[in-house]
Amino acid sequence: MKNLLIDAINFGLPYAYEGKPAAYIPELSKMNPKHLGVAVVSMKGEMWYSGDSEVRFTMQSTSKIAALMLAIMDRGEQYVFSKVGMEPTGDPFNSIIKLETMKSAKPLNPMINAGAIAVNSFIAGANIEDKLNRLISFIRKLCHNDKIWFNEAVYKSENTTGYRNRALANFMKDANIIDGEVEDVLQLYFRQCAIEVNAMDLAMMGAVLAGDGKSPVTGEILIPKNIARLVKTFMVTCGMYDASGEFAVRVGLPSKSGVGGGIVAAAPGKMGIGVFGPALDSKGNSAGGIKVLEYISSKLDLSIF
Amino acid sequence: MKNLLIDAINFGLPYAYEGKPAAYIPELSKMNPKHLGVAVVSMKGEMWYSGDSEVRFTMQSTSKIAALMLAIMDRGEQYVFSKVGMEPTGDPFNSIIKLETMKSAKPLNPMINAGAIAVNSFIAGANIEDKLNRLISFIRKLCHNDKIWFNEAVYKSENTTGYRNRALANFMKDANIIDGEVEDVLQLYFRQCAIEVNAMDLAMMGAVLAGDGKSPVTGEILIPKNIARLVKTFMVTCGMYDASGEFAVRVGLPSKSGVGGGIVAAAPGKMGIGVFGPALDSKGNSAGGIKVLEYISSKLDLSIF
Amino acid sequence: MKNLLIDAINFGLPYAYEGKPAAYIPELSKMNPKHLGVAVVSMKGEMWYSGDSEVRFTMQSTSKIAALMLAIMDRGEQYVFSKVGMEPTGDPFNSIIKLETMKSAKPLNPMINAGAIAVNSFIAGANIEDKLNRLISFIRKLCHNDKIWFNEAVYKSENTTGYRNRALANFMKDANIIDGEVEDVLQLYFRQCAIEVNAMDLAMMGAVLAGDGKSPVTGEILIPKNIARLVKTFMVTCGMYDASGEFAVRVGLPSKSGVGGGIVAAAPGKMGIGVFGPALDSKGNSAGGIKVLEYISSKLDLSIF
Amino acid sequence: MKNLLIDAINFGLPYAYEGKPAAYIPELSKMNPKHLGVAVVSMKGEMWYSGDSEVRFTMQSTSKIAALMLAIMDRGEQYVFSKVGMEPTGDPFNSIIKLETMKSAKPLNPMINAGAIAVNSFIAGANIEDKLNRLISFIRKLCHNDKIWFNEAVYKSENTTGYRNRALANFMKDANIIDGEVEDVLQLYFRQCAIEVNAMDLAMMGAVLAGDGKSPVTGEILIPKNIARLVKTFMVTCGMYDASGEFAVRVGLPSKSGVGGGIVAAAPGKMGIGVFGPALDSKGNSAGGIKVLEYISSKLDLSIF
Repeated sequence: MKNLLIDAINFGLPYAYEGKPAAYIPELSKMNPKHLGVAVVSMKGEMWYSGDSEVRFTMQSTSKIAALMLAIMDRGEQYVFSKVGMEPTGDPFNSIIKLETMKSAKPLNPMINAGAIAVNSFIAGANIEDKLNRLISFIRKLCHNDKIWFNEAVYKSENTTGYRNRALANFMKDANIIDGEVEDVLQLYFRQCAIEVNAMDLAMMGAVLAGDGKSPVTGEILIPKNIARLVKTFMVTCGMYDASGEFAVRVGLPSKSGVGGGIVAAAPGKMGIGVFGPALDSKGNSAGGIKVLEYISSKLDLSIF
Repeated sequence: MKNLLIDAINFGLPYAYEGKPAAYIPELSKMNPKHLGVAVVSMKGEMWYSGDSEVRFTMQSTSKIAALMLAIMDRGEQYVFSKVGMEPTGDPFNSIIKLETMKSAKPLNPMINAGAIAVNSFIAGANIEDKLNRLISFIRKLCHNDKIWFNEAVYKSENTTGYRNRALANFMKDANIIDGEVEDVLQLYFRQCAIEVNAMDLAMMGAVLAGDGKSPVTGEILIPKNIARLVKTFMVTCGMYDASGEFAVRVGLPSKSGVGGGIVAAAPGKMGIGVFGPALDSKGNSAGGIKVLEYISSKLDLSIF
Repeated sequence: MKNLLIDAINFGLPYAYEGKPAAYIPELSKMNPKHLGVAVVSMKGEMWYSGDSEVRFTMQSTSKIAALMLAIMDRGEQYVFSKVGMEPTGDPFNSIIKLETMKSAKPLNPMINAGAIAVNSFIAGANIEDKLNRLISFIRKLCHNDKIWFNEAVYKSENTTGYRNRALANFMKDANIIDGEVEDVLQLYFRQCAIEVNAMDLAMMGAVLAGDGKSPVTGEILIPKNIARLVKTFMVTCGMYDASGEFAVRVGLPSKSGVGGGIVAAAPGKMGIGVFGPALDSKGNSAGGIKVLEYISSKLDLSIF
Repeated sequence: MKNLLIDAINFGLPYAYEGKPAAYIPELSKMNPKHLGVAVVSMKGEMWYSGDSEVRFTMQSTSKIAALMLAIMDRGEQYVFSKVGMEPTGDPFNSIIKLETMKSAKPLNPMINAGAIAVNSFIAGANIEDKLNRLISFIRKLCHNDKIWFNEAVYKSENTTGYRNRALANFMKDANIIDGEVEDVLQLYFRQCAIEVNAMDLAMMGAVLAGDGKSPVTGEILIPKNIARLVKTFMVTCGMYDASGEFAVRVGLPSKSGVGGGIVAAAPGKMGIGVFGPALDSKGNSAGGIKVLEYISSKLDLSIF
């Protein structure tokens, strides 16, 4: 496995050189585009890794699946999906069109920004700090890492420039989709996106999903099986922005990417995979990371299809 | 003329009874739907009126033409129309779709909310108070009324519930359309919408436009001729929300309506007309007010077509 | 007047050199982009002209106003506008989006292709030939020219390549907007677009509209006054494709353009103007023709605003 | 297994009573809404069935996956996906909007009507008959049934009323997406949709897909493995119209439905399932059929997630 990961990194590196870090969040544009790392965690909790697997980066959209699971555990599937849809969309991740043209302003799914902001507003807690602590505590368990916290500089950078997300949140508030004050929801959302992990953390999180919610290290049930499956479904249909369809064809693994460069993938019953490569392709996915996953999936015949 | 106005009010009243006040701004929903008033000012400054022509109401979208003229005088036509388009749109007044689907996020014209918010951000002034004072001072001149000020309760009501306008402003800030801080722009915009006038004030303002910018009372040039004409053009092509086309066919006068129930109309070289009727039709225009204008235009053959 | 027209042509020529003939209809792309002509007809039937005012070209969208007037005379205003809207649109002339996103598939107005195809289907007649003869006969009267007929080569060219118009027609047939067989309607529409006129013909037609429907030569009432006014309204709000707003600001005359290079304009109570210049700008309007109209309107202060 | 299928039918029947047959194709509206049938084929070619599993119905959209596989075998993956996208869409199956708003007119995926019509035009053959014979011959192999043919009455019904599909085809022809003559493509497409099968046929077809392209009866490789997987991917992301996301959550099996009432499902490495129930829900999927699949998937833990 170790050798496979080394080969995967070598396979992915040339593609990483063609991408570039997210430009729309100033702090993210400072990342080193040559970084590429991968980690794998088996169902027994064994871990292998290669490349820049210990470099820390912000979760960005990979945090959406953790927030979704927590919100469903807090409020129930019925409540969450009365406010957010279950359907993939061919529109870009930050699109606002569907909120207006569909019969209701329900965001189409919890993986696009609009849906994720709404989901974020459903997390239980007395105030922003309380909600954030609950979310980080949950992510620490998923990643089996007690030191996870959020990156203040990235949070501030997103808070300063997050006009499109403010537009989405206000639009949904107008339509009664989100709970609480708009600015509170955004403050939590920007911090959530700035939570820092590395490829090993994401591999562990992927392994929990691969095991239908059970920690491969402690054996503890961290997520009910039905919620773990539900989240894997969204990862397939809309986890890779508007390249989800092509990714499903090429890789065939439930995966969620973030513009910080991370991707978390789950091979059901087999393993979790975390990759990191901040150079992004035109759809906002890690250019090298996608190729690393394609290599591993192909060599180990991991496609669920 | 006095008798004509009495007949016009009687003609319009049954239609007013079919409409209802704007519901989406709580404070506006308290208005008396049975009110209907009209005033006419000739090119010599003579005034006639009938019905509830002295009842005060908030300008809402009728303020957009004043703000547009001031912004063009402050920044020049070229600057303003590098940020806002000149084309009518078949979309509703608060639509956000075109901002995303067009090649640029330029709002299509200065009469829809998105365009008006952008225009508002171009008004010169050191801060919100300064800008507001300059705008109100300009409107006082247009209406020949030194007592005009804004309604604090309506402003607060719009400020509290203005999520859709906040969405529009943030979306445009993201696309570099509006100048200054989003919240500053909105604070000015909400106050601008809440400026209080009556039908007589609007008739005077219409007469200035009808006279290509010259005050019918003092003879002072308040607006350059080319700007007065430009504004009348927008009043025809997009002054009555997405009913502008039908209104042009039925009435044929440059007019601008607001959800406060007011409509300002200009019969070029002939007269200005102000109407007030807070009961709105499904497009957001004064239900009775439109009929009053239709009656007057038909009887006096005022259509510009 | 003669000198004014010579100056207008000289003013417009440099702009014509920047445009190019319509490329999407093969036969139209063969036109000489350096042609530029203008003609004016007064309310007394006097005519002046300059430049290439006798060169024949196909009416294309300028035929839409004739077809609309005939359809309203045939079927009544109420029927026509139960199927086609009265509102301008910010979308391009051949757009299909609004047919799907609006509550009904009603095309927004009779000047966009969708609306014009629908209007075309309302013209009375036993069959295509009959309908075409009635339409051409009507246009001959409007232009005071008995020799008008359609261009077979251009008709065939449009018939062969008119996929987008076929898409629009089928979409509307599905929504019960158009009467009769789709292919019959298209055969009439393609012939209608290929009717040949010159700038003098269009000036005469503009003069009829300027005179509220009365022929300036024979004094005969060719169109009821209310229909003449209604059509002038559409010419202002949506006669120049998605540049109608800017054109209203710059020129201020009810006008209708076609991709054949013609524009017909009406200065109410004053004169009709016909221009021809096959080099088009990016919106599909005659690049030089717009400037010729801008020059004439400015010099004679013809703006209706 | 036999008992399981009986229970599944009983579980699904009450839901079938809430749906109704497709109304937009006259011939389909005559179907018996109380029909509900299911069949299962194992990887060894064993078959079980229950309910109305022998009632014949038209494939409609279930034919799209067969046509897609044939087109890829004929023209190569690269060619096909240079013309048709791989992404799911949140729009309805017959939507035309995305063809206009996206940068290219490429239909988003081969499962929506626009994409399927394009794919249909790529099937090799000298003429319509030849192409149809090749497609039916391929479907006969997939279903292991030499008697499959198309239903003339349903074909004629769709041909007469298929205005929306004609609109889609013409729009794409204008954008150079489809090969050949528009009417030829539609004639093949309408016949393809009218091909008749029963639930047993679909179960066999599902088993071939479940076995990565190998016939469970003859062992013959009917489809290359990579194409079988690619098609299963589309079945998950966009096989159930704009309810694909929710279906993936509830059932978790690659599936394709048709408005004729059929659904073909594949449990990779395990079995193929065919269901039939012409009463449709609001999204166009078999109301009872979905529940039958939900029951079987849940009882046998077949979800791929």
